[in-house]
Amino acid sequence: MENKLKIGIIGLGTVGTGVVKVLQDFPEIEIIGACVKNTSKKRSVEVNFLTDDPFVIANHPEIDIVVEVAGGVNPMRDVLKTAIKNKKHIVTANKELLAKHGAELFDLANEHNVVILYEAAVAGGIPIISPIKNALRANKFTRVAGILNGTTNYILTKMEQDQISYNECLTRAQELGYAETDPTGDVEGFDTMYKIATLANIVFGKRIDVNKIYREGITNISDDDIKHAEDLGYKIKLIGLAQLDGDSLDIRVHPMLIPVENVISLIDNALNAVQLEGTPVGQIMFTGPGAGEFPTASSVVGDILAIKSEIKTSDYILPLTRCNHHEYANQLNILDTKSCYYISINAENRVGTIGLIGSVCAKNSINLSNIVQKGIKQDGTAQVIVVTEIASERDMQNALTELKEKGIVINNLIRAM
Amino acid sequence: MENKLKIGIIGLGTVGTGVVKVLQDFPEIEIIGACVKNTSKKRSVEVNFLTDDPFVIANHPEIDIVVEVAGGVNPMRDVLKTAIKNKKHIVTANKELLAKHGAELFDLANEHNVVILYEAAVAGGIPIISPIKNALRANKFTRVAGILNGTTNYILTKMEQDQISYNECLTRAQELGYAETDPTGDVEGFDTMYKIATLANIVFGKRIDVNKIYREGITNISDDDIKHAEDLGYKIKLIGLAQLDGDSLDIRVHPMLIPVENVISLIDNALNAVQLEGTPVGQIMFTGPGAGEFPTASSVVGDILAIKSEIKTSDYILPLTRCNHHEYANQLNILDTKSCYYISINAENRVGTIGLIGSVCAKNSINLSNIVQKGIKQDGTAQVIVVTEIASERDMQNALTELKEKGIVINNLIRAM
Repeated sequence: MENKLKIGIIGLGTVGTGVVKVLQDFPEIEIIGACVKNTSKKRSVEVNFLTDDPFVIANHPEIDIVVEVAGGVNPMRDVLKTAIKNKKHIVTANKELLAKHGAELFDLANEHNVVILYEAAVAGGIPIISPIKNALRANKFTRVAGILNGTTNYILTKMEQDQISYNECLTRAQELGYAETDPTGDVEGFDTMYKIATLANIVFGKRIDVNKIYREGITNISDDDIKHAEDLGYKIKLIGLAQLDGDSLDIRVHPMLIPVENVISLIDNALNAVQLEGTPVGQIMFTGPGAGEFPTASSVVGDILAIKSEIKTSDYILPLTRCNHHEYANQLNILDTKSCYYISINAENRVGTIGLIGSVCAKNSINLSNIVQKGIKQDGTAQVIVVTEIASERDMQNALTELKEKGIVINNLIRAM
Repeated sequence: MENKLKIGIIGLGTVGTGVVKVLQDFPEIEIIGACVKNTSKKRSVEVNFLTDDPFVIANHPEIDIVVEVAGGVNPMRDVLKTAIKNKKHIVTANKELLAKHGAELFDLANEHNVVILYEAAVAGGIPIISPIKNALRANKFTRVAGILNGTTNYILTKMEQDQISYNECLTRAQELGYAETDPTGDVEGFDTMYKIATLANIVFGKRIDVNKIYREGITNISDDDIKHAEDLGYKIKLIGLAQLDGDSLDIRVHPMLIPVENVISLIDNALNAVQLEGTPVGQIMFTGPGAGEFPTASSVVGDILAIKSEIKTSDYILPLTRCNHHEYANQLNILDTKSCYYISINAENRVGTIGLIGSVCAKNSINLSNIVQKGIKQDGTAQVIVVTEIASERDMQNALTELKEKGIVINNLIRAM
């Protein structure tokens, strides 16, 4: 048994508990100890020793791999730096830490000849990091887009299926444990932003400045928007998107209208999905559970076993698991991107309103593909839904300003795929 | 440049040509020569030397990897055995050879310390073999099901969308080059059978006897069946399925009705898809192009680069790329499997027919979930569509025999997911 791989776990919440349970089937992995917030709390799994100090794990002489499933930047940034300096490999699900301080951590890991694996940080149980680095390594990618947050996908699905409001869905999701008491990280798109940054990093081989990513959440999506989108043949999903535009990278997070012909529109409830486009492969999509105790543990334990299969035979670690790129991507400002747009408008119900909308758009080089009047509201205004062809965000923002100046109320602007 | 990896290619058809084109971006890989049927034919790619004898490639002293994209059992079985004995690694897309003689080839490869990689053999450009062996390695799988043949999926999609017959679709697919002049391998399910055998082999870690796989193609699917299925909320797809039933393996190939809520029902045209179910991951699905010059080259070149990244640093080859299981799966006879069923029936249009169908099914322990009379045909018979709950194939075959004895004409029996 001298060949056992020894791990320490930081965090015994949902994912950490799942990891301990799954590892019961892998006697070649020994859990030395775990760090938890409350060492006296009763738990469904047993671990040799518990500590409430993560540095005890990071400094423990017997531990080969630190499994970090606690999340957050502080103190995990310093904890993992300590572990790396102690020549421990890292397996982490911490997308926020990777998105904000990945560059520093990967450099340090290279310096100390250890690896950081993070399959669980993006899309939970769906294998995506490893396929990009392995089976798809012959490809140059042009685009990655995904439904990367299960909570918001659940809310949007329920809004559509049960025709209820965002707030009602959020409450229900909170009651079911799908959304947290403070749902900001999910519903404002932060979680998706960290994940698309982590994905874009490996898909395009460039470092990403997470502060430059345009981000919009789902709190402004109304049940009306969902219904109008449906009538026009779309579903609304919160999308993390990163695509090449020449030498620049267009990376952003916002709700999108997805045509129902696109398979990603059909990924409902808490499921995640990632679409990749590249040469030579073309377009492929992976879908599955993006969170949860066991799916996430599948990815964490997969990473642990990947390290084990390497270090048991030699001191050589897969070069592919390193992060060797140092150049930052040239990230586009949202105003320099292009999209199709859905615009929900309230306008005075008089002759010429639709013509006005059309002429303001035309003046700003925006072609309309669809314009529908949705009837008269109680206040006498007419609701008009416009869908545009592909247009520049700058032109679109100029058109919106002009429409507002002319007394037209913009209920919502949602980009479309 | 002493570190260049040297390959020989057998087959310069669509896939082989794609591989040569893609490798132009990888100067670390050198193509020594290629084997083709006709060495004087004009080609869109250039290779150092051409031969029409595959053994020249298998015996060439400079070649490190033999890339076999010619297909077929003869002479490739002997060619690859020769190459392996010459200590060459193999990258192949030959699902028929792997399904029929994989055991022999993998044993020989282990003996000679070389690997056989075959990502391109199943689902073209979709990474599936490598994710199962790598990111998903913590899982015990219970089920794999897939749309594994693009030609038949194209035909079924067109039959549905354009409401035309199988024969009309086949002709169109042949004109477009999606189907071969002799379409047997695709439309009778042989191609899907080889692929599900290859998949089941690694998903369940057991050898598969391809001769014991139940197989049905799509030639009996009528435009009526497709329409009736649609009315009931299903699409018809040709499915390769392998699932555990206790210690036995239920592995088969046949058309299936898929509920439209199941994402796999929406994988249309020439796309492929693979659904996996396991613990701890749950259910995941991969979809993308299952064939074609460039998607398939993505997988072939991915395998070549995987071998390169291993052998450039040491003489150690990934243990995961070996095939170390020797036990054969206990494959169920189709009569011992269970499914839901769709039955299209022609019966005399008289009182009691539906009652008769119901009572014969009930007598054979088959519960019906749906029974619809589809109107009277010109010959005076009534068409009745029955969908059952899950039932045993043996019971179902007994019920069909009994119904036929009572003068009822069975147009088609299609299993449902």
